[in-house]
Amino acid sequence: MNGFIFYNPVKIVFGNGKINSLASDAIQIGKKCLIVIGQKSVKKSGIFDKCINNLNKVSVSYVLLENIQPNPRIEKVYEGIEMAKKNSVDFILAIGGGSVIDTAKAIAAGFYYEGDAWDFYIMRSEIKKALPIMVILTVAATGSEMNSISVIQNDSVRQKNSAQGYPLFPKVSILDPELTKTLSKDYTAYASVDIISHVLEGYFTSEDENTPLQDGFTESIVKTVIQETYKLMLNPLNIESRSNIMWASSLALSGFTTAGIGRFKFENHLIEHALSAYYDIPHGAGLSIVIPAWMKENREKMKRKFEKFAKNIFNSKTADEGILRIESFFKDINAPTSLSHYKITNIKELTDNIIECAPTRGLNLTRDYIERIFERCK
Amino acid sequence: MNGFIFYNPVKIVFGNGKINSLASDAIQIGKKCLIVIGQKSVKKSGIFDKCINNLNKVSVSYVLLENIQPNPRIEKVYEGIEMAKKNSVDFILAIGGGSVIDTAKAIAAGFYYEGDAWDFYIMRSEIKKALPIMVILTVAATGSEMNSISVIQNDSVRQKNSAQGYPLFPKVSILDPELTKTLSKDYTAYASVDIISHVLEGYFTSEDENTPLQDGFTESIVKTVIQETYKLMLNPLNIESRSNIMWASSLALSGFTTAGIGRFKFENHLIEHALSAYYDIPHGAGLSIVIPAWMKENREKMKRKFEKFAKNIFNSKTADEGILRIESFFKDINAPTSLSHYKITNIKELTDNIIECAPTRGLNLTRDYIERIFERCK
Repeated sequence: MNGFIFYNPVKIVFGNGKINSLASDAIQIGKKCLIVIGQKSVKKSGIFDKCINNLNKVSVSYVLLENIQPNPRIEKVYEGIEMAKKNSVDFILAIGGGSVIDTAKAIAAGFYYEGDAWDFYIMRSEIKKALPIMVILTVAATGSEMNSISVIQNDSVRQKNSAQGYPLFPKVSILDPELTKTLSKDYTAYASVDIISHVLEGYFTSEDENTPLQDGFTESIVKTVIQETYKLMLNPLNIESRSNIMWASSLALSGFTTAGIGRFKFENHLIEHALSAYYDIPHGAGLSIVIPAWMKENREKMKRKFEKFAKNIFNSKTADEGILRIESFFKDINAPTSLSHYKITNIKELTDNIIECAPTRGLNLTRDYIERIFERCK
Repeated sequence: MNGFIFYNPVKIVFGNGKINSLASDAIQIGKKCLIVIGQKSVKKSGIFDKCINNLNKVSVSYVLLENIQPNPRIEKVYEGIEMAKKNSVDFILAIGGGSVIDTAKAIAAGFYYEGDAWDFYIMRSEIKKALPIMVILTVAATGSEMNSISVIQNDSVRQKNSAQGYPLFPKVSILDPELTKTLSKDYTAYASVDIISHVLEGYFTSEDENTPLQDGFTESIVKTVIQETYKLMLNPLNIESRSNIMWASSLALSGFTTAGIGRFKFENHLIEHALSAYYDIPHGAGLSIVIPAWMKENREKMKRKFEKFAKNIFNSKTADEGILRIESFFKDINAPTSLSHYKITNIKELTDNIIECAPTRGLNLTRDYIERIFERCK
């Protein structure tokens, strides 16, 4: 096992109806907040009103930043920083999924920073301080509610990058599975792909056989997400499946499946971020295209690990069969597995972007390697 | 899944040689500490000197409380509280295993408490504040380095009880596998039994099939500990096995395998604590006696869960075979599986003690039930 630091101080409040613990948790953090939400759904579903009722109960006032879109943009971060400063808020309350939470994190850090908040995303500045962050999770996918990572897109440079820092850990994240019941089948599928990708990025970082715990945790998460996603495709209201996926999602990128595996590569995410940045497709849908291709390209390099994956997840005998099985799962749940699904053909442009972004992730990839993977995505 | 709160803010610094990060971590917590250690081994092994060198480097001064024994006694807690107050220390540094850490926690809480620190252990008072705690772990067994639990024995009432509270989470725990290399084979075996017991207490709390993640995590920990303990019995210096067991141990009672399973019972621990309190035997050795008997007694009540355990841990077909396999593992590593090993015959006295302590754990057990389990331990 490699050395590591594990630190994750987020307080998770989990359970059906727990949205109503917002009042008691919020008042312990501050008296005035900036609420960050997405485009329509939290207002339409009544979740927003429930949150406001809770804040009113304890006289916490708020200002509102709305219309955060998937693949969240840096412009909304700037707007949020201005609002937070102008209104001297005590904390940021994110009500939504990964895009909303990541925007809230960027605002929280930008609040105390003199320069351009994009600096955090191109490793030009470290995050030293941030406003406290609270989360009401409505989409279980990115795991942002239980980590210190934020991913933001900057269209002016066509980049989608991540930043990380201890001050970005939410103070409290409320995980109420009831709130995720109305998520569409498509987005439920993309979310599951995202969750699985987070643990597999770590799993396939090396063939080291000295991480049986981490491998076992990852296999449990992948098996659970596959099983529960199938159930949700039949009955999206299955609250037990929503619960299991919600908790799997938070744990998947919380650091505990990767502590001890060494520096992991996150190549699938790097490649997918180019797809999102250029074509604005859902992150999970981009991942279901990239993952099988990435696996086929890397199968020979890590054959033993792929065999372990095949055996322990699918009870399959060969590496190839394991890869086919995960691809079949993506197809079964209607997650795209080919670039043609989005009529994407300009591979050169995407490859240029990836080669440009790779060093900020500490990755050194060749043009040939990326092109071979895209070739397999066609 | 049941609702839960998950919160674990301990910073874990893991890796060979990490004992030397003590200097930089300690100075961030305070300038003067009370060091708590056990009877001889940390001085003999040179670990104590290494720690002192680290503290000297950053001019952190200390006072020393030594001779904490296994099944740590409340008298040493009182002594430590006096020392901490008299010397106005800023934090407590535990260098040792569970007994030492649990004593450090009791002192940390007692420092701010007007009454008798034993009150925390009989649910007469809540822990509201404690001095910061740092840990250098030398025995991987109890998981105390990554939770907010402390277990202390009070000979005057012949009770061994636990207390819990957020202020008891260590600020930083340094997990340096090299420090555990010299642990004897016997104590290595008892430690492994303890680790396994922590996750199985949760696993066998219910037959609920809606906790696939938690069950999978538990199975990974049990399988890993069994495999790595066998390796250590052949070669106690195998540092990879020590590493895997150390991390398994910290995670096993950190809350993450039990979040969502509901209130869990901890019956094996309740029963074992009576054995320790009366006969001062190693906690893990008491557990290896109790667990197979407890399993045989409960097999029919939770047959499906025992079948799952047998299949997923040992690839065995029946509940009975699973129980036999775990008992064989205990025998293979020389952990006792019968009361006769310690010539214990007075079951009535033990049963009286258990019946008396059960309500403080929220358990309601009948005399018949306890006696039947002891009968199976003979």
